[in-house]
Amino acid sequence: MKPYSNLKKDELKKELDTLLTEYKNYQALNLNLNMTRGKPCIEQLNLSMGMMDVLNSSVDLTCRDGFDCRNYGVLGGIDECKELLGDMIEVPKENIIIYGNSSLYVMYECVSRSMTNGVMGSTPWSKLKKVKWLCPVPGYDRHFAITEYFGIEMINIPMDNNGPDMDMIEKLVSKDESIKGIWCVPKYSNPDGTTYSEEVVKRFARLKPKAKDFRIYWDNAYSVHHLYDDNQDFLLEILDECKKAGNPDIVYKFTSTSKISFPGSGIAALATSEANIKDIKNQMRVSTIGYDKVNQLRHVRFFKDLNGIKDQMKKHAEILRPKFELVENVLEDELKGLNLAVWTKPHGGYFISLNTCLPIASSVVDRCKRIGLELTAAGSAFPYHKDPNDSNIRIAPSFPNLDELKMASKILALSIKIESILYLLK
Amino acid sequence: MKPYSNLKKDELKKELDTLLTEYKNYQALNLNLNMTRGKPCIEQLNLSMGMMDVLNSSVDLTCRDGFDCRNYGVLGGIDECKELLGDMIEVPKENIIIYGNSSLYVMYECVSRSMTNGVMGSTPWSKLKKVKWLCPVPGYDRHFAITEYFGIEMINIPMDNNGPDMDMIEKLVSKDESIKGIWCVPKYSNPDGTTYSEEVVKRFARLKPKAKDFRIYWDNAYSVHHLYDDNQDFLLEILDECKKAGNPDIVYKFTSTSKISFPGSGIAALATSEANIKDIKNQMRVSTIGYDKVNQLRHVRFFKDLNGIKDQMKKHAEILRPKFELVENVLEDELKGLNLAVWTKPHGGYFISLNTCLPIASSVVDRCKRIGLELTAAGSAFPYHKDPNDSNIRIAPSFPNLDELKMASKILALSIKIESILYLLK
Repeated sequence: MKPYSNLKKDELKKELDTLLTEYKNYQALNLNLNMTRGKPCIEQLNLSMGMMDVLNSSVDLTCRDGFDCRNYGVLGGIDECKELLGDMIEVPKENIIIYGNSSLYVMYECVSRSMTNGVMGSTPWSKLKKVKWLCPVPGYDRHFAITEYFGIEMINIPMDNNGPDMDMIEKLVSKDESIKGIWCVPKYSNPDGTTYSEEVVKRFARLKPKAKDFRIYWDNAYSVHHLYDDNQDFLLEILDECKKAGNPDIVYKFTSTSKISFPGSGIAALATSEANIKDIKNQMRVSTIGYDKVNQLRHVRFFKDLNGIKDQMKKHAEILRPKFELVENVLEDELKGLNLAVWTKPHGGYFISLNTCLPIASSVVDRCKRIGLELTAAGSAFPYHKDPNDSNIRIAPSFPNLDELKMASKILALSIKIESILYLLK
Repeated sequence: MKPYSNLKKDELKKELDTLLTEYKNYQALNLNLNMTRGKPCIEQLNLSMGMMDVLNSSVDLTCRDGFDCRNYGVLGGIDECKELLGDMIEVPKENIIIYGNSSLYVMYECVSRSMTNGVMGSTPWSKLKKVKWLCPVPGYDRHFAITEYFGIEMINIPMDNNGPDMDMIEKLVSKDESIKGIWCVPKYSNPDGTTYSEEVVKRFARLKPKAKDFRIYWDNAYSVHHLYDDNQDFLLEILDECKKAGNPDIVYKFTSTSKISFPGSGIAALATSEANIKDIKNQMRVSTIGYDKVNQLRHVRFFKDLNGIKDQMKKHAEILRPKFELVENVLEDELKGLNLAVWTKPHGGYFISLNTCLPIASSVVDRCKRIGLELTAAGSAFPYHKDPNDSNIRIAPSFPNLDELKMASKILALSIKIESILYLLK
């Protein structure tokens, strides 16, 4: 088929009629499909059911250093759990704090603490006239929601295949003391699936921000979340780079087991310098006596070590890979040669990111919704939900089954075609 | 024995010699006793081991409304868990939010949220020149640590057997808009074991603070933590009283299962009005996707209903009661008639609160520490660790075994006698 832009008005109208008939056929099916969030599917959840067996009433719940995990105490997490997650994200256990079930919460808390009590003795951000934040786009909507909640002004930073625009970041942070942080998903980024290049990581580690309390929020959400055995992205470990660069305190690195074990019942962790850990623990010991150590122990006993996690991730990949490929193939089949959209083919993570060539993302998402396919709201990948090009659509293929995914992808492609023609006919 | 205050100087000196010999004998034992915190003992922890069995790999982890507890979602907690904790603290499930493992954290978060984002649209407290807080004393050190961390000025409120001084509270809150809250442990209070009278609860419910964003932080930590079957304190349910009084939004009520199931791995909850819940959820949905639902389900499946919790609490009481009575008896035996100290005989909770008649609490605690008995630091029950009378010592009898407790209580009594004489001889 020829690109729509090469068609004449009456050809477009004829095509539109065909497409609308197809659309009506879907409408008649009363579908209820959901591709909004990066939610693991049931088969993935089943991979961790063994975790429900490793602890039982005849198992000793004492951790390695002799502490009874059932009782109060052990503020930063049990040693063997720090080691397990440390191995996973390539950080010594001394640099790890284990939290509750949500790394998002850990990030929220870091911003919140900085607002009320500053960073390593700096002025609390709530006492400043203005606090700004850098946001590589497209990015993770829940990150942007946190900074928005605290009234922090967000600045878009363009991304390319190597990561965010480092020239722009270096320039901005070096002269503006009100810029206090940046959101990064450095590996298999949400939604683009981009992994930051070595050069980008090194430039991050060497940043010299004017604000001494500037922190890189390094959300390593997909550190081991590969889709392929043979085609994996590599990310340079940033804490070590920062140390080498004489910049050890500039980064907070976050991780969790949410998409490794159970999404709601995993464990989250923060990795950072000793000085940051000391600073954070001053707050931590005020706010809690400790996080759920039984669940920490459960994870350690189930996974045993990094190899246990890697094995688990291979099983996740076997379930996810066909889903990603199905969506990619349907989009390819349906949209080939039409010049209507481009999309990513990530090597890991949870999303396919699609960009329409015309500014029609929100009408495409609406059109899908009207016949029972829910997609992440258009604009979600941008601060304040404002996609300057109204172009980005995030596709989350993990939860639906293959049949649902096939139909969903067809509906998405169909809606892109319809809305493109409607736009061209305007 | 006669009261020390009636003894002559040389009689006191002679008595001191005898006591110091006894003290040296303890010293030779190289003891390591700890009565610092309200930590359940191993026998208590063992009561909940069945909780490790109720979920296993052949159990369906779907909750009542069909939601898969393993996955993301369900922000405010699963329905059956809200019901269980609601029944426990006499509040409808609609008024409950389930959190993670620590009610202390929930309180911390409430203050933190109010600092950064205000209460139901009020000015964020961090934007105010001054924020003050009422602190019934003696009280819970970790409460005071939270308000201190946020730079909130704390005002001591005296307590008697009915609860805090309501005249003083009513007067203060009615005229000072900078007073934003009050810490309360209304049942079996920490450390005094006091339960607020009906009149006190009703006066709390009818408070008319000048600050519209004033909240009563009602830490119902010991709601079902009775020591006796037949001699239980009764606390009027405050949410309902507030509603009746046309003051529905004035209270945040906190609870947790920390001293019911496992202290580090329980579930915490907040109970409050619908309007407050709506306000809090605006923050909650920014900070997390949800708390650990598998653990919520685990608690529901283990306890089943309120009767399950009550049965469990009877078993806790059977372990704790002899410990409390032992301490009370040793103190009675050792200090009878000497007029050196008074102490509580609570019907529930986790502490015995002792007040020395002379201002010697810190030297008593130091003296105990020097021969291997660790007590909560003197002054801990007061804001800024300042006990105006240097008199209060908090005794936590739950963790040590009976032999240890007997020795610890004797050492405590001995140290009180020694320090009293040293004070009188000054």
